[in-house]
Amino acid sequence: MTFEEARAQFPVFERFAYLNAGSAGPLPRTAVEATQAKLERDLAEGRSGAQYIEELFAARERIRGGIAEVLETDAELVALTDSTTRGCQTVVAGLRLGSDDEIVTTDEEHFGLIGELRASGARVVVTEADEEALLAAVTPRTKLVAVSHVLWTTGRRLDLARLRQPDGPALLVDGAQSAGAIAVDLTGADFYTVSAQKWLCGPDPSGALFVRDPDRLRVAFPTLFGALSHEDDGTYVPKDGARRFDTGWIGGPSLAGLEAALAVHPDWRYDAAAESAARCRDLLAPLVDIVTPPGHSTLVSFHPPGNPTELVAALGERGVVVRELPGRNIVRASCGWWTSEDDLRRLADGLGG
Amino acid sequence: MTFEEARAQFPVFERFAYLNAGSAGPLPRTAVEATQAKLERDLAEGRSGAQYIEELFAARERIRGGIAEVLETDAELVALTDSTTRGCQTVVAGLRLGSDDEIVTTDEEHFGLIGELRASGARVVVTEADEEALLAAVTPRTKLVAVSHVLWTTGRRLDLARLRQPDGPALLVDGAQSAGAIAVDLTGADFYTVSAQKWLCGPDPSGALFVRDPDRLRVAFPTLFGALSHEDDGTYVPKDGARRFDTGWIGGPSLAGLEAALAVHPDWRYDAAAESAARCRDLLAPLVDIVTPPGHSTLVSFHPPGNPTELVAALGERGVVVRELPGRNIVRASCGWWTSEDDLRRLADGLGG
Repeated sequence: MTFEEARAQFPVFERFAYLNAGSAGPLPRTAVEATQAKLERDLAEGRSGAQYIEELFAARERIRGGIAEVLETDAELVALTDSTTRGCQTVVAGLRLGSDDEIVTTDEEHFGLIGELRASGARVVVTEADEEALLAAVTPRTKLVAVSHVLWTTGRRLDLARLRQPDGPALLVDGAQSAGAIAVDLTGADFYTVSAQKWLCGPDPSGALFVRDPDRLRVAFPTLFGALSHEDDGTYVPKDGARRFDTGWIGGPSLAGLEAALAVHPDWRYDAAAESAARCRDLLAPLVDIVTPPGHSTLVSFHPPGNPTELVAALGERGVVVRELPGRNIVRASCGWWTSEDDLRRLADGLGG
Repeated sequence: MTFEEARAQFPVFERFAYLNAGSAGPLPRTAVEATQAKLERDLAEGRSGAQYIEELFAARERIRGGIAEVLETDAELVALTDSTTRGCQTVVAGLRLGSDDEIVTTDEEHFGLIGELRASGARVVVTEADEEALLAAVTPRTKLVAVSHVLWTTGRRLDLARLRQPDGPALLVDGAQSAGAIAVDLTGADFYTVSAQKWLCGPDPSGALFVRDPDRLRVAFPTLFGALSHEDDGTYVPKDGARRFDTGWIGGPSLAGLEAALAVHPDWRYDAAAESAARCRDLLAPLVDIVTPPGHSTLVSFHPPGNPTELVAALGERGVVVRELPGRNIVRASCGWWTSEDDLRRLADGLGG
């Protein structure tokens, strides 16, 4: 598949320099068509019956396999969730932390992670988003280190293998800005979340959770999808592997959309995305103060010359879609494998380049 | 709107005697069209921007109001969830029960409720699905009574006002088989869940949670939708009322579908549904052993003359859609306001009537 063919799968690029996959990925036409076909089916035939349910379960397994490929891991270690937030809830509640426990995290996490950490009841220790600062904050009471693989703010990538010390606390990784964007090496991660509606271009919401050792995490939220069998008194037998952490019902239309979305990404995805981010840096460097370290991720975050809200609005008027990170004086461009030279030039033009 | 006009909103009735809203409601054409229109919009224009987010929030508020009307309560007391299961998680985790606490429930609850109760760590006391048995099981250690308003098995309706004693434990009600099916009186309920994909005919999954006194329940799962503001360290200010319990992102297409679905139900919905259930009883009484007490709900559950799995399959062959409740030797017909005499006669014919 050529670049032009692969990119043509996304109608949004016909009009927009859409550089916001870090919020929500561009949707491929095939994903929307597959979703609509299932909606038509549900409309005409209803949403029930043994065959209907079997098909839902089969689609879930195909998607589990697709997510496992993205993470270069085994499908047995992948739970289907609906978001990174839900994945964090599953881990934090499963570990059953109390007020005697500590969690170490950074001051650049998304609320979908750090909000859940705070709600756990454990003591939350917040450090700079830096491997050394994180490791220095770990004490014998630290039960969990929880960080983004790629920070949604600066686009910096953290070194997971370094953060996970052999005798140290478990490592929960928010993969919202990495899974599908960069080649993910799970080394170091005990838990790794996926937001499928971002870099994987799936329906919103959709997601997954990698669990390295499913037998060692309590199932905080049992669902029919995670149960092999269950009794009237609520006792049940969990499924093998990470399936037991599946967080609940995903509709047939969404499953069809997600499966189709997982299929649109070419082999050269990661190289092309890295190249487009590097090219974005080159074009923007003379114009703005770039925050993202080179070679870290597919985000290019920068301090704008003026008011960030006004800049994002002005770019939007020109059909250039980027986002502001509120309260941080940062504007962020998300560069995918699908991003063209023209997209990036439109952004640079909008910045006065 | 006449019965024929109202019923014609659901294409599934053109071919099927669809009597399974207790699993998943029939979809109205307007809901699917609204969903598809939003999908087309997202495909062409992308899923981001200030206006896009504003529209999502506005749709959430309209839906909150629509659910509040169904429950005859105030929108301030309604949280948007994606299922009854999620609502139960929100309550059980919010109450932070421990091994010294007891929860009293029945032996006829859905796994989506009783599974969560078991996972709470509290002691779960299981009684017959009967008001007296439940009240007799309450002790000073009981922190929660958790029951269905209408049991998904037998279709029996429990008396919430009687179950909630003035000085007794809080009452969590699974409203999956009641909200949208019968006129709901929330008297007695401290927490009440809604499964919008069943009797309200919304997209799957969709739902809500009524919280009588939002200030008295801890927010176990903070989300951006429940936060008025938040800091980088994860501390935040919850929104007023039950909005703080909103469980997360709902996509624009689903919101559009749910809003459209809430609009299709006529004023005479509850009378017509009760009448169709009564008529179903009359037609089936000579043929099978009916389990559901008269006048309780819109479900008609019965012990079939032979093997229930084979019966459901044989009815399916005739285009009559009902479901089996596994392990209970029960087949269940769900009668909505949309159910016709012909639907019920097709069911009776399939039972040899």
